[in-house]
Amino acid sequence: MVLDRLKQLAQQVTNSVSPPHPFDPLSSLEIETATSLVRAEHGSLFYNAVTLDEPKKADMLAWLADPDHTPRPHRIADVVAIGRGSKVFDGLVDLDERKIIQWKETPGVQPLITMEDLQVVEHICRQDPKVIEQCGIIGIPRQDMDKVYCDPWTIGYDERFGSGIRLQQALMYYRPHVDDNQYGFPLDFCPIFDADKQEIIHIDVPKERRPVNQAPASNYHPTAVKNSGGYRTDLKPINITQPEGVSFKVSGRIIEWQNWSVHVGFNYREGIVLNNITYFDRAENKVRPIFYRLSLAEMVVPYGNPEHPHHRKHAFDLGEYGGGYMTNSLALGCDCKGSIHYIDANLVNRAGAATTIKNAICIHEEDAGILFKHTDFRDDSVVVTRARKLIVSHVFTAANYEYCVYWIFHQDGTVQLEIKLTGILNTYPMNPGEDTKGWGTQVYPGVNAHNHQHLFCLRVDPNIDGPNNTVFQSDAAQGPGDVGSVENKYGNAFYAKRKRYTNPVESISDYDGQSTRTWEICNEDKLNPYSHKPVSYKLVSREVPKLLPKEGGLVWKRAGFSRHAVHVTKYNDNQIHPAGRHVPQTSGDPARGLPEWIAANPNENIAKADIVLWHTFGIVHFPSPEDFPVMPAEPMTLLLRPRNFFTSNPALDVPPSFAKTPSEVLAGKRGYDSNKDKASVLV
Amino acid sequence: MVLDRLKQLAQQVTNSVSPPHPFDPLSSLEIETATSLVRAEHGSLFYNAVTLDEPKKADMLAWLADPDHTPRPHRIADVVAIGRGSKVFDGLVDLDERKIIQWKETPGVQPLITMEDLQVVEHICRQDPKVIEQCGIIGIPRQDMDKVYCDPWTIGYDERFGSGIRLQQALMYYRPHVDDNQYGFPLDFCPIFDADKQEIIHIDVPKERRPVNQAPASNYHPTAVKNSGGYRTDLKPINITQPEGVSFKVSGRIIEWQNWSVHVGFNYREGIVLNNITYFDRAENKVRPIFYRLSLAEMVVPYGNPEHPHHRKHAFDLGEYGGGYMTNSLALGCDCKGSIHYIDANLVNRAGAATTIKNAICIHEEDAGILFKHTDFRDDSVVVTRARKLIVSHVFTAANYEYCVYWIFHQDGTVQLEIKLTGILNTYPMNPGEDTKGWGTQVYPGVNAHNHQHLFCLRVDPNIDGPNNTVFQSDAAQGPGDVGSVENKYGNAFYAKRKRYTNPVESISDYDGQSTRTWEICNEDKLNPYSHKPVSYKLVSREVPKLLPKEGGLVWKRAGFSRHAVHVTKYNDNQIHPAGRHVPQTSGDPARGLPEWIAANPNENIAKADIVLWHTFGIVHFPSPEDFPVMPAEPMTLLLRPRNFFTSNPALDVPPSFAKTPSEVLAGKRGYDSNKDKASVLV
Ligand SMILES: [Co+2]
Ligand SMILES: [Co+2]
Repeated sequence: MVLDRLKQLAQQVTNSVSPPHPFDPLSSLEIETATSLVRAEHGSLFYNAVTLDEPKKADMLAWLADPDHTPRPHRIADVVAIGRGSKVFDGLVDLDERKIIQWKETPGVQPLITMEDLQVVEHICRQDPKVIEQCGIIGIPRQDMDKVYCDPWTIGYDERFGSGIRLQQALMYYRPHVDDNQYGFPLDFCPIFDADKQEIIHIDVPKERRPVNQAPASNYHPTAVKNSGGYRTDLKPINITQPEGVSFKVSGRIIEWQNWSVHVGFNYREGIVLNNITYFDRAENKVRPIFYRLSLAEMVVPYGNPEHPHHRKHAFDLGEYGGGYMTNSLALGCDCKGSIHYIDANLVNRAGAATTIKNAICIHEEDAGILFKHTDFRDDSVVVTRARKLIVSHVFTAANYEYCVYWIFHQDGTVQLEIKLTGILNTYPMNPGEDTKGWGTQVYPGVNAHNHQHLFCLRVDPNIDGPNNTVFQSDAAQGPGDVGSVENKYGNAFYAKRKRYTNPVESISDYDGQSTRTWEICNEDKLNPYSHKPVSYKLVSREVPKLLPKEGGLVWKRAGFSRHAVHVTKYNDNQIHPAGRHVPQTSGDPARGLPEWIAANPNENIAKADIVLWHTFGIVHFPSPEDFPVMPAEPMTLLLRPRNFFTSNPALDVPPSFAKTPSEVLAGKRGYDSNKDKASVLV
Repeated sequence: MVLDRLKQLAQQVTNSVSPPHPFDPLSSLEIETATSLVRAEHGSLFYNAVTLDEPKKADMLAWLADPDHTPRPHRIADVVAIGRGSKVFDGLVDLDERKIIQWKETPGVQPLITMEDLQVVEHICRQDPKVIEQCGIIGIPRQDMDKVYCDPWTIGYDERFGSGIRLQQALMYYRPHVDDNQYGFPLDFCPIFDADKQEIIHIDVPKERRPVNQAPASNYHPTAVKNSGGYRTDLKPINITQPEGVSFKVSGRIIEWQNWSVHVGFNYREGIVLNNITYFDRAENKVRPIFYRLSLAEMVVPYGNPEHPHHRKHAFDLGEYGGGYMTNSLALGCDCKGSIHYIDANLVNRAGAATTIKNAICIHEEDAGILFKHTDFRDDSVVVTRARKLIVSHVFTAANYEYCVYWIFHQDGTVQLEIKLTGILNTYPMNPGEDTKGWGTQVYPGVNAHNHQHLFCLRVDPNIDGPNNTVFQSDAAQGPGDVGSVENKYGNAFYAKRKRYTNPVESISDYDGQSTRTWEICNEDKLNPYSHKPVSYKLVSREVPKLLPKEGGLVWKRAGFSRHAVHVTKYNDNQIHPAGRHVPQTSGDPARGLPEWIAANPNENIAKADIVLWHTFGIVHFPSPEDFPVMPAEPMTLLLRPRNFFTSNPALDVPPSFAKTPSEVLAGKRGYDSNKDKASVLV
């Protein structure tokens, strides 16, 4: 039976008309081919992840350079499966060869928690006598156990339980009514769930008990709004239309727009992955590579309350749950407005079947205001040109929070990453008059929202006119010479002080707000013909708090990537996940991922080398009542800007809205206005 | 004759149907009434500025609180006029009483340079024998003097000439053709223009001469683009329409939108001024004051090349030229897209007549993506609500640069200030092979663009639930206790470390990127009922470089406001301009404006007091070829966010695009989608 299915799938793969691009995520067919092959050989397992094992970079660069005369990289599935006794298997399946090329049990690790893993915990909590007992203590009678909910989190790491047993911590809530916002009714105890035994093995109970909140529900659903006065009625529609169609072209998963070309990938873990980002440079009359790969590779959300067991609240949302797995199916006219191209995401379920998130990725254009403008004050001769941007986005729900991730391409060669935080605060109960001790804020009566950081790790695999790049740290610095000296008489001298990173240890660096530090990813072998400086892309990132959990503490150990704003490493095909491949229940002794890689090769050459830049950025969130019951989106952003990369503004040939030269002004001519927007009106 | 005109104007004022709002800028009629009154008494003068002398705050707050029973503040014109011998007169004209209530000669100051002041210099340069001689030396023959241009700047300060004579420095350029971009042909010498004598009194000539650039013109006008391959043709239109009209109401200059109310003023100096910003809080069922006044009050653009005379390049674009005077007349469908409400600006000319900038201020709405969203991972019950923003903007041209200023109101109570820099770099010639010494970048052959900062001073006059406010500095800080200690076992404790400013000296503070420092403007007499923290607005600003010119140097002395990120002072009706009322040719000995005010009252109480917060922010600009010949807009932004001001997200009643509750999911119901956008399409 299994073999029949396998043959059938193999047949379908063979019959596919055009083969997938080597960067394409696995199709449903490929996922099921992989699980069928594994099943045939290893029997019944739970599938944790089946995703594209991306081609070796060397193979891929060769293929991209000359696809017609280079062997096409094989389609390989990276499989994580779990057997009885929480045994973890890591394997690779060659889909072209239809065989398992690697299979091993990996001891002492816990792969991420899938949505299916999460779903089961609440059911078990409701029936567990110890949980029922705790609910009783804080005022929830046994017959109301169906009103008890939990957000199961990975346990993170708890030294009492170690890494051997697959565990979750259940953050408990209550809903008087099924539609009530549970985060207004947090419960004070925390059951520990053993995924292997499928039972609650322990409950963390605080010394000071906090009865279930008696305040009215803090809801934001339509009925609640209607009951408190209804929706505002003074918001008139804004329509955004593209009557002649969109300006981007879609070929498979390659998007071409305004000289840009980018392959839009997706995986269960990082969500959107952008590959082979290039720009057609009109001046050089060629396609220039810029980034081999961009992704959000990891994140950590440490909470700042030191009282037990809140230290365990430091979710690695990507490594412990998967930004892809948690991705929303987006809705036209709701999440997305305008002329929208969607791409679905194919994932695997526990049983090994393919599942699909419809409309996982949204691709669309937006007007972006003024691209450039200059008026001559003498005669009002002018050029004004409007900007457009292309946005590739997804939204994922990490239990209470939502993260909206926007990869934005600009006409001037800039790539922007914008992240908006919305959703609901993680909450904990507080008794009337209880002191938050500064670790949190009462955002609603009885509801304590703890301080936390949202720290993201952007992985930049640059390809600035080729794979061999160098990173420079650049600080705005005062020039030498005191005020009054010959060299700096008026004290105004300043310059960009640059530090060249030659090995990973040198590259470990923090943000400096005073010098507005940036990092330049350069190709030192290619100088800009005008500036004689290396062609480069500059990382401009201003939301870069330090990691607040202390050195040597749990978060510091586990989230090694977040200790500093920037790390640069030599490229390695196996280094994608900066907190390690399997994140849950890592102790941080030793730290996995980035610190481990750097410790292994601290003096490796990273100058004029194939490198990866890891950038940790984010915000510190001290909650306030405005964030409740649902948080208005809080934006943060960073830019990757071309500097000395082009010989001029690369968007000069974007048609202006209006242009009039001095001679036209003088001659009373009308000027150029063929691209003036005709839909605009005066009101 | 003069008196006839005066009577006629007085008559018109009397006949006006509705009196202007006390915050309204002077009308054309009011401007001409003021100049007629001055002319009648003081004869022929050149008018430098005639602007609203804003009502005393005490009077105005009384009137706003009860307009029907409070004397309406008089309309008063603030007049700056210049007589023969560069004599400067400062006066006040009561327009209601039709009399001059203050008039004095102010010795030793130079008021700002108007566009008319600028326009004359180029003509004189072209005819000046010494300028003609210098042009000849660098290769421009006498017969080509009509191809020589200059951007006249205030001299800033030059100790050789002092403050007594009204001077400009002429930054020289050449245009082979009248339509050529002159910034590709900078000249190496700098004439000094005496505005009183109307002649060139000196020329600064560098030791090393630089012949006029021989590189081809670097143009961006339509003909140039056509000659180099033409405009791109793959950009399809995006139409933004509001078929049912806009969501804001305009009553005179008061704009009401989404619970916000704001009076939009304008003056020659700051450009847009926002007054009496309030928010209707549905929870408190009342209008709550937030800011009495917001404006960009000053800016300085210090250049970093210490070679003489480049130290003089540090334009105070607002104080030395006027952001209002330099404001562009905006064009529908070009600068502004969508459904646009324009407001004109009335200013005075040199002769004392009113002039009008049509469409000086643009007011419009934009979609702003997701306002908030939350999905329950259990059942995909969801609320997703889209955001709207209201933007009040103007664009001004400061010689080579353009500044696009966007005051943005959000539905969640946030006020955002976004500034985009575009236009053209200030340039200086360089010889082939010349070393920029790190003070600049060759952005085009023969063209050196010097390092510079753009530092803006935001003036925040808060009114957070009343005029008595306190500023706290807030830093994200690690909690006490080493890792392993009882109080901080896992090292994760962190909190918001707050410092209360009680006097101006304490308030002098810099940005700290590591702690992501913010400043909270609080009303300590009103605590949020949930958080028990003072109601506040928080300044979130991340582009805050330090002032790079050195302490004691020219820029440091003249631009005292820019020495630190934040200063807080006691409110004073006369303290609007942080670099002083008359900025050109101030020596900085002593520093005018902010340092002067603080020095005069260093220990004045600013806690629970009527205060003003001055915030300096901006960017450091190391030019690159991408910025030439015209710069793609570079954005910077800051937020004023409500924290502990509301008792919940104040935008909960914005109609969602889609909402479905758990019970609706369970019952298979459709959910709420009445506000789904119907114009969106799949592509
Ligand atoms: Co948060
Ligand atoms: Co600049």
